[in-house]
Amino acid sequence: MYNGKVCKFGGSSLADADKIKQAAGIILGDDDRRIVVVSAFGGVTNQLIELVETQHRNHRVDFQPMQHLEKKLLSISQGLGIDDNTNRFMHDLDTRLREEYSNPKQHSDNVKAWGEYATGLFMTEYLNKMGANAKFIDSKEMIVVSDDFGNAIILPESDEKIIAELGNLEEIAVTSGFYGSTKNGVIAALPRGGSDTVGGKIAGVLRAEIYENFTDVDNIRRVSCIEDALPIDVMTYDEAMGLSYLGFSVLKVDAIKPCLEADVPIHVRNTFNPDKEGTWIVKHRKSDDHAITGIAFKPGYCSLNIRKVLFSRDPNHILATYLLHTEVGVTSFGEFPIEHAPTDVSNISFIIPQEYFTNMTVNRVTRHLADYFKIPSDDITPDYNPISLISVVGQGMKEKPGVSARIAGAIALEGVNIKFITQGASELSIIYGVNETNNEPVNARKAVEAIYNEFFVEPKIGRALNLVK
Amino acid sequence: MYNGKVCKFGGSSLADADKIKQAAGIILGDDDRRIVVVSAFGGVTNQLIELVETQHRNHRVDFQPMQHLEKKLLSISQGLGIDDNTNRFMHDLDTRLREEYSNPKQHSDNVKAWGEYATGLFMTEYLNKMGANAKFIDSKEMIVVSDDFGNAIILPESDEKIIAELGNLEEIAVTSGFYGSTKNGVIAALPRGGSDTVGGKIAGVLRAEIYENFTDVDNIRRVSCIEDALPIDVMTYDEAMGLSYLGFSVLKVDAIKPCLEADVPIHVRNTFNPDKEGTWIVKHRKSDDHAITGIAFKPGYCSLNIRKVLFSRDPNHILATYLLHTEVGVTSFGEFPIEHAPTDVSNISFIIPQEYFTNMTVNRVTRHLADYFKIPSDDITPDYNPISLISVVGQGMKEKPGVSARIAGAIALEGVNIKFITQGASELSIIYGVNETNNEPVNARKAVEAIYNEFFVEPKIGRALNLVK
Repeated sequence: MYNGKVCKFGGSSLADADKIKQAAGIILGDDDRRIVVVSAFGGVTNQLIELVETQHRNHRVDFQPMQHLEKKLLSISQGLGIDDNTNRFMHDLDTRLREEYSNPKQHSDNVKAWGEYATGLFMTEYLNKMGANAKFIDSKEMIVVSDDFGNAIILPESDEKIIAELGNLEEIAVTSGFYGSTKNGVIAALPRGGSDTVGGKIAGVLRAEIYENFTDVDNIRRVSCIEDALPIDVMTYDEAMGLSYLGFSVLKVDAIKPCLEADVPIHVRNTFNPDKEGTWIVKHRKSDDHAITGIAFKPGYCSLNIRKVLFSRDPNHILATYLLHTEVGVTSFGEFPIEHAPTDVSNISFIIPQEYFTNMTVNRVTRHLADYFKIPSDDITPDYNPISLISVVGQGMKEKPGVSARIAGAIALEGVNIKFITQGASELSIIYGVNETNNEPVNARKAVEAIYNEFFVEPKIGRALNLVK
Repeated sequence: MYNGKVCKFGGSSLADADKIKQAAGIILGDDDRRIVVVSAFGGVTNQLIELVETQHRNHRVDFQPMQHLEKKLLSISQGLGIDDNTNRFMHDLDTRLREEYSNPKQHSDNVKAWGEYATGLFMTEYLNKMGANAKFIDSKEMIVVSDDFGNAIILPESDEKIIAELGNLEEIAVTSGFYGSTKNGVIAALPRGGSDTVGGKIAGVLRAEIYENFTDVDNIRRVSCIEDALPIDVMTYDEAMGLSYLGFSVLKVDAIKPCLEADVPIHVRNTFNPDKEGTWIVKHRKSDDHAITGIAFKPGYCSLNIRKVLFSRDPNHILATYLLHTEVGVTSFGEFPIEHAPTDVSNISFIIPQEYFTNMTVNRVTRHLADYFKIPSDDITPDYNPISLISVVGQGMKEKPGVSARIAGAIALEGVNIKFITQGASELSIIYGVNETNNEPVNARKAVEAIYNEFFVEPKIGRALNLVK
């Protein structure tokens, strides 16, 4: 359908005129790069958020940040040597700001979207100045999103529109990431990382040759939280999803998903170091020497523990989940989303993100479960102590012996207690829950570092147990 | 309600006149032993099963085994010095055999029940001969069971009847285990171990002082499959359930459950060595030096693996279970009982007993899940390779460091691959799935022995990792 690459450039790749020139050089250096998705000029989104939040607090627009933005636009258009349209852009921003804001989130989204909108138009103009035939296509024309302002998701209705807008385009298309419009035609922004998601969606729908994700690092590292962690050269979609899901940096799950579904390889690269091989995310890869591919963690979970005699022999025991999401008036987007449900013989633990684990919800759910299972409420124990989840991911763990022992050993030697474990039969990842004493994921960090050291620095446990030579 | 002990004697404790005398001596040695539940004379149940199965095959009653049984009864009544009622008992058995058997399972149950019935009456008569005031109470008068012949479960309707029959009895009550009667008044047998279950039920309903379970071993061992494994002196109900559930010897889960619910301590003892302390099963116990209490395993599971992008973020993902048990015409007793459902990021594995994992059921369930999740059937992969489950149980694992590492290490050093893991937040047990090459649980046995050696013989891994001194 589209025999070319979809290239997405992050904000840090577009932070000033020189950087935009580098990005444009990359686009023009390959005839296959005919669809470009841009984030906002680096730093601009944060400035817009501050601007609009101050306005909502003080009920007046603050001029100083407006001047900063104006200066930035001016300096970029001068640096790029394109026509100075700063006035027009600032007027457009002013118009967005002065719209009524009875729905503050909706208002914010429209203001934030200005960043990608302006960046897209600047890039288009510069590409044309360089002799290309480029056309700006506003993402609001083709990306249909839910009306969860600030947290919108892309709806399937987008597919047809993306194909109509981009399927047979002669020009280089430059489009704004991060936002779309609702079915009612109102602008709504995706969560952070939304430009990656828009890029992934377009690449997936058009079955692009490659989805190139240009950022400011040479590659994805094995562990986000370790500064000098080794790079990942290639991983599968499933591995990437397993890491992203727990907040691994660089690419969000929603950006990977459409590429996985259409089998579009993702190539994460450095705008400022384009000769580096970067990180590939593909359907299948050859096994290498490594038992694991990467490690991610995410703090902020709690558990609701249900003690029921003979639980796992009761074929209806998971029914509770159903009830939680229907009869108690909980929507299917989940007031009480159960991310994992590890079982033993007489217990089931529901692992829930902390923000949903309020006293009120817990009490309501507890009453309901007690009723349903005909057990005393005492047998349902909420545990408000924060838990961090650690996801250890790698297709290699299937083939290498003792991976689970080495991970658990590394965690144990840090004196960190494992609260729960779940590993599905796909043997692609193991998820551990560890307790934290407060909201700082101290134990998770210790555990992740220890696991990293065991698998990528020195296999102390593997050697002590003669599992590794 | 009943300030006394409920004593259950297994078949091996009642295999001949001398053994019955020993059992009676135990009963009469303590005034608190006023409710007695008996299994059939050792070996008799198997003979009855063979007798009735031969009859169903050949459509005639085989006289030789009848003569064996007659000789056995005669020798026992002579040995006990009680009146010879052999004729009456053999006639009763003959009557049961000659009833019509359009429902062979129902017919079998009635024949099998004769064993406990006869044993109960013999014991009653002998106790009376010894000067006690004993009364036989047929379990069919108070144990109400489901009509799953050969596999019946005790229904709550029993509670009232047990209280009526036994609550205020003056005499020593001797009752037959193993069977009850359905709501229609027909005899139905429980699965193997059913006398333990009847004993546990009576003890629980009457809130007995102790449920004494007399058998032919000194105590429950840490591992059933290791001949000389160390004994368990005391464990909690939860620990016992965790072991029993995976086929640990001595007591079935259904026997423990009513005692757990009424907090009746269970005392497993040896009829032939009553001075030994045996094994106590209680609500709470002090922690000791041991990180784990026991290990059990059970072969014969398969897994259905469902790959769904972003599974664990979909709050409805466990809904599938509900659908399986309602819309597809599956009864709540489970044509496809999911015992565990370990998850990772994009996979959920349903762990199912092999006997339910037929081609037909799997195909039906697969179609249904594919429809429900709107995913291709290819993303739902049945794995027919046999899996054994290993349950490592112990309240000590919460307090001791590195238990999970030592278990996984022990398994890894045997070269056995861990297929899945699930550990709930109660930290009372960890369940591992390991692949087998055929129906022999070779890998599970190797793994269980290695875990036993690590925790009870020599903590090689614990020492190598400096987790144990």
